Amino acid sequence: MSLLVVGSVAFDAIETPFGKTDKIIGGAATYIGLSASYFTKKVNLVAVVGGDFPKTDIEMLEKHGINTAGLQIKENEKSFFWAGKYHNDMNTRDTLTTELNVLGEFDPIIPDNYQSCEYLMLGNLTPKVQQTVIERLTKRPKLIVMDTMNFWMEIALGDLKETLKLVDVLSINDEEARQLSGEYSLVKASKKILEMGPKVLIIKKGEHGALLFNKEEVFFAPALPLEDVFDPTGAGDTFAGGFIGYIAKTGDISFANMKRAIIFGSALASFCVEKFGTERIVHLTEKELNSRVQDFIDLVQFEIKIS
Amino acid sequence: MSLLVVGSVAFDAIETPFGKTDKIIGGAATYIGLSASYFTKKVNLVAVVGGDFPKTDIEMLEKHGINTAGLQIKENEKSFFWAGKYHNDMNTRDTLTTELNVLGEFDPIIPDNYQSCEYLMLGNLTPKVQQTVIERLTKRPKLIVMDTMNFWMEIALGDLKETLKLVDVLSINDEEARQLSGEYSLVKASKKILEMGPKVLIIKKGEHGALLFNKEEVFFAPALPLEDVFDPTGAGDTFAGGFIGYIAKTGDISFANMKRAIIFGSALASFCVEKFGTERIVHLTEKELNSRVQDFIDLVQFEIKIS
Repeated sequence: MSLLVVGSVAFDAIETPFGKTDKIIGGAATYIGLSASYFTKKVNLVAVVGGDFPKTDIEMLEKHGINTAGLQIKENEKSFFWAGKYHNDMNTRDTLTTELNVLGEFDPIIPDNYQSCEYLMLGNLTPKVQQTVIERLTKRPKLIVMDTMNFWMEIALGDLKETLKLVDVLSINDEEARQLSGEYSLVKASKKILEMGPKVLIIKKGEHGALLFNKEEVFFAPALPLEDVFDPTGAGDTFAGGFIGYIAKTGDISFANMKRAIIFGSALASFCVEKFGTERIVHLTEKELNSRVQDFIDLVQFEIKIS
Repeated sequence: MSLLVVGSVAFDAIETPFGKTDKIIGGAATYIGLSASYFTKKVNLVAVVGGDFPKTDIEMLEKHGINTAGLQIKENEKSFFWAGKYHNDMNTRDTLTTELNVLGEFDPIIPDNYQSCEYLMLGNLTPKVQQTVIERLTKRPKLIVMDTMNFWMEIALGDLKETLKLVDVLSINDEEARQLSGEYSLVKASKKILEMGPKVLIIKKGEHGALLFNKEEVFFAPALPLEDVFDPTGAGDTFAGGFIGYIAKTGDISFANMKRAIIFGSALASFCVEKFGTERIVHLTEKELNSRVQDFIDLVQFEIKIS
């Protein structure tokens, strides 16, 4: 079933203890789209780039089955650019450069033939733009998943709260959940956030896995213990793309199926961090993916009979 | 099957954001013994206290089926005393006082009727004392589990490495695993540590769960997401006590059974943090414990059929 992905398509320059890149393709919607493309070939992209964005990168997205009819190209402007440097523990990073460029005035135009999309993934963008996307859809999707970040909690909390009322699933990290709720305990945080609109909350904890909450249930998915994390950039978006992609493929929005979706998202994210940028997730085989999912099953599987 | 527990029995004074205690019963062997007592009533304790240690506390241990024949009482000396204050996040703490007292010259005398013990749990002590315990056993136990801490890595690394050669399972936290191995990645750390002697390594990650490694396999057990952590003191020892207690009960040292033991240990630890000190784990029912284990099963259970 078809999926609409809205978010940034951009340039990243990444420095880690293992090396550094020039400007390479990045952006939330890039990672989400690529990751989702392993589950459904009906991925419709809405994003904006400048005239500096390579045609080869757009072709690469299309080769993955991503429809780029909704990718606006502003020929006389520059693409969004982010540069960052990771610290030795790979859990913290410094932003070296953020150039909004085309993203500063992004107007998310939805092509007519995208209107029937059943699933919507809103990558990290200003909450106002995310809200505009929802308003411009003539029919509400079956499931709306939204990602956001602490930055918007600081400068656009009112808009963010308005947008939260319109979505089904919110995906944020542990620190963002604490900031949004004012609660340190993630259980308490989830209760408060689930009062704000979303029916389901995903809390990403990086190397410590992810939690999935609805008002009655909680599910925990571990991250795979890895020998090396080469570059964490895009892991959260890759996770989200795997999650929504699996749901779009199966057409099942039950909590039980969301658990499976979290595992597939985690598996995709575990590949993402193995190489720079999108390098690892542009060349995945079904066999590799299934084998990785089996690793997750083996990692947490145990049998206990309670007397 | 019978279990020998060696470690500190002591006084703690604890301060958390939720309140503070006077001197209350603490010590690694106290938590380990109490926790293990929910699985086997053949817990044999070797430890030392001063004349200041309340008889009522010793009776409490005995009521839990803990044999205190090996608990030395130095009438004219004082018990080991630790005081600490937890920070608001409950993950970090300051040590306010450490008075070694009787523990400074602890000579671990093994009563004759303890000699047939099949399982040995060495709580955190100087590595030399841990080694002495092993040397004094006429028959090697079926499984020796050892806990230690960063302090010994700093001041007695040589002794620690000697002791590591003699044990089957090492239980440490993530920071200690990094310190002992010099590797940030816990997968790499586990490989190095499993070359040092232990056949199995448990890495405790506090609120992020625990990892169990042998040379071929890895298992991850989550921590239960809790609304409140009231006092983390003793949680690691309670976890270890549940682990070794379950193994002593079942008499099965396979990796599959160690997975179950980790879940039971995690369940016990999740109770421990709900109240100050040992308060919560002295009054547990089988029903409560089974219900908590079911919570762990529900937390991580998912079904995926890989095509």
